[in-house]
Amino acid sequence: MSELLIREDAASISTLTLNNPGALNALSDDMLAALKSTFLDLMEDDTVKAVVLKGAGKAFCAGHDLKEMQAGRQSEDGGSAYFGDLFSRCGEVMQMIPHLPMPVIAQVHGIATAAGCQLVASCDMAVAAEGTRFGVNGVNIGLFCSTPMVALSRNVPRKQAFELLTTGEFVDASRARELGLVNRVVAPDALNTETRDLAETVAAKLSSAVRIGKRAFYEQIQMPLDAAYEYTGQVMATNMMDTNTAEGIQAFIEKRKPDWS
Amino acid sequence: MSELLIREDAASISTLTLNNPGALNALSDDMLAALKSTFLDLMEDDTVKAVVLKGAGKAFCAGHDLKEMQAGRQSEDGGSAYFGDLFSRCGEVMQMIPHLPMPVIAQVHGIATAAGCQLVASCDMAVAAEGTRFGVNGVNIGLFCSTPMVALSRNVPRKQAFELLTTGEFVDASRARELGLVNRVVAPDALNTETRDLAETVAAKLSSAVRIGKRAFYEQIQMPLDAAYEYTGQVMATNMMDTNTAEGIQAFIEKRKPDWS
Amino acid sequence: MSELLIREDAASISTLTLNNPGALNALSDDMLAALKSTFLDLMEDDTVKAVVLKGAGKAFCAGHDLKEMQAGRQSEDGGSAYFGDLFSRCGEVMQMIPHLPMPVIAQVHGIATAAGCQLVASCDMAVAAEGTRFGVNGVNIGLFCSTPMVALSRNVPRKQAFELLTTGEFVDASRARELGLVNRVVAPDALNTETRDLAETVAAKLSSAVRIGKRAFYEQIQMPLDAAYEYTGQVMATNMMDTNTAEGIQAFIEKRKPDWS
Repeated sequence: MSELLIREDAASISTLTLNNPGALNALSDDMLAALKSTFLDLMEDDTVKAVVLKGAGKAFCAGHDLKEMQAGRQSEDGGSAYFGDLFSRCGEVMQMIPHLPMPVIAQVHGIATAAGCQLVASCDMAVAAEGTRFGVNGVNIGLFCSTPMVALSRNVPRKQAFELLTTGEFVDASRARELGLVNRVVAPDALNTETRDLAETVAAKLSSAVRIGKRAFYEQIQMPLDAAYEYTGQVMATNMMDTNTAEGIQAFIEKRKPDWS
Repeated sequence: MSELLIREDAASISTLTLNNPGALNALSDDMLAALKSTFLDLMEDDTVKAVVLKGAGKAFCAGHDLKEMQAGRQSEDGGSAYFGDLFSRCGEVMQMIPHLPMPVIAQVHGIATAAGCQLVASCDMAVAAEGTRFGVNGVNIGLFCSTPMVALSRNVPRKQAFELLTTGEFVDASRARELGLVNRVVAPDALNTETRDLAETVAAKLSSAVRIGKRAFYEQIQMPLDAAYEYTGQVMATNMMDTNTAEGIQAFIEKRKPDWS
Repeated sequence: MSELLIREDAASISTLTLNNPGALNALSDDMLAALKSTFLDLMEDDTVKAVVLKGAGKAFCAGHDLKEMQAGRQSEDGGSAYFGDLFSRCGEVMQMIPHLPMPVIAQVHGIATAAGCQLVASCDMAVAAEGTRFGVNGVNIGLFCSTPMVALSRNVPRKQAFELLTTGEFVDASRARELGLVNRVVAPDALNTETRDLAETVAAKLSSAVRIGKRAFYEQIQMPLDAAYEYTGQVMATNMMDTNTAEGIQAFIEKRKPDWS
């Protein structure tokens, strides 16, 4: 599986490359398994401070492996059990991203369609090259992007998400940024550098604070206001008891750099 | 009631025209009844693949029928029971739109105010003519747009919705698009054509997939992330078992047009 | 406490000035107590129709009082109980703003950072001077802005909020408006006038209707669609029974100004 998904760690940043360019990095059974396995490793990893997820070849990711899905129809039940399991596994992988302890940044180029667009939406942040095209275009072949829309509709305003889903039309990187689907749009030849800069910015922060904050971000966003405040109030009090946080605040008061161990 | 609300079906698209231009297509008791009746018909309709909702005359819709509402005060209870019933009926009609099995597109021109603006917000998508003015301006006459804000605040960011509601100020079509209230802004003389184009785009998709997807869209958007994935995973597996979806995917693999029966 | 927080009422508008410019109007224990006390007064106030919240000196508010927080570590438990209490008190004050019966407008200049940015996000509306810088930059000193993000993530799209929180980077007023964090951006020398204009616009409305509406706004936004409609339908029926609303509607029909007592 190491061939399908390449992991390269350097300077506390883990870069994951979807590496099946001939299939536009389709989320095949094997690719989903490789992502799950790698995410499980990262879940327990104390050294990685940011993850960059990108695609080899001319696209970020074009979604599910349609040929593999069609082959699934050969079983006795016409594929029913397989499809149920496939979308369950895919949903599990997508949900692992917000549950990972460190920020995950999608580095997007070429196309990001269907479950590939879902992957972008599921990441904490996204940097896209000018010219990238985004779509949840399963409707064009009769398969509505129902799971991708879970992530999409939590990034993009309602009517705009509905339009993408029912027209199957693509938007470019600039429009994707307006819609909230990506954070930054850069020139194609700056994509690597700009994404790395963002990852390094995040990785330079106090890791324990970022981990506390990322977890709280997704927890509180689903709570009513009063519960969200009760919960995050406790989170901040806990954060304050971190000795590195004490040092960070003291250093700020004394106008010096923090000495974080 | 056929005069108040004109329904014209052609090429799998149903066009509904609010037809009381002298009253700026006010949502009177009769107009609400006509909308409910027509929506009930469409709820059971297997042939219509998209609905366009527009207004006759110089406006899309200016909201409730204020004269009729004032007349309601003549009853013994000062109108209390009538008003409770009126807003209940209006809310029921508004909620029927996301429950309709096919996408509903608002074709908006002139003004869309108060419950007329709510009608735009309640539609799945909206195309507006340049120059259209949108407002939830009931506050100007002492009647806060409390039911319109249910739909509005699910389309438009919080502070911007609050501003519209408490200032009673209007925004133009271009700003409405920035805010997420409409999908597309077009020249007035292109409004018919552009809205029809969008309706035809949606109507050309596999109807069963669009119906599955629209229903799932509004269900999942109110769920926590894990429940949304569990639910939509099952929706996609069901979608996959549709023989037309099997054909759609196979046609895509074979680079030909699907033969959808 | 009157020195820390100056309240000036004029023409039904209450202007609150955070008045500790030497500390960039930090939300110290005393400042939080002053805000709570003043908000409690306003909670029962029938004459004030809009509140403007601004800061004296060169900044709106730079968040918590870091020196005071560090001093809190001297207690036997290292500050644990104090920090829990501090964030609880701060969250309580922030939540009082949407619960106040009249609209609250943040008038923002200079910087609005960490809990100062949370204060902007917690207000119903915000007007910012060009050049104002916004940030939830606690992460830079090892203290993730977990409570500020409760308000922020209910104003700003998800990926953009996450970026601000984990990079600690600032955005200017123009970008803050694009993100939904502020309503209007004006020239610095027009800030007072433009904010007052907005407050006067709101204060000129029928106060009972605005109060009904503001309360309903925050209640319904947390409800599922059907519950939101059931609730606001009753709110509008109640609003209709207000004699001033009856007069407002009648005046509109008769094309005259309402005679609101």
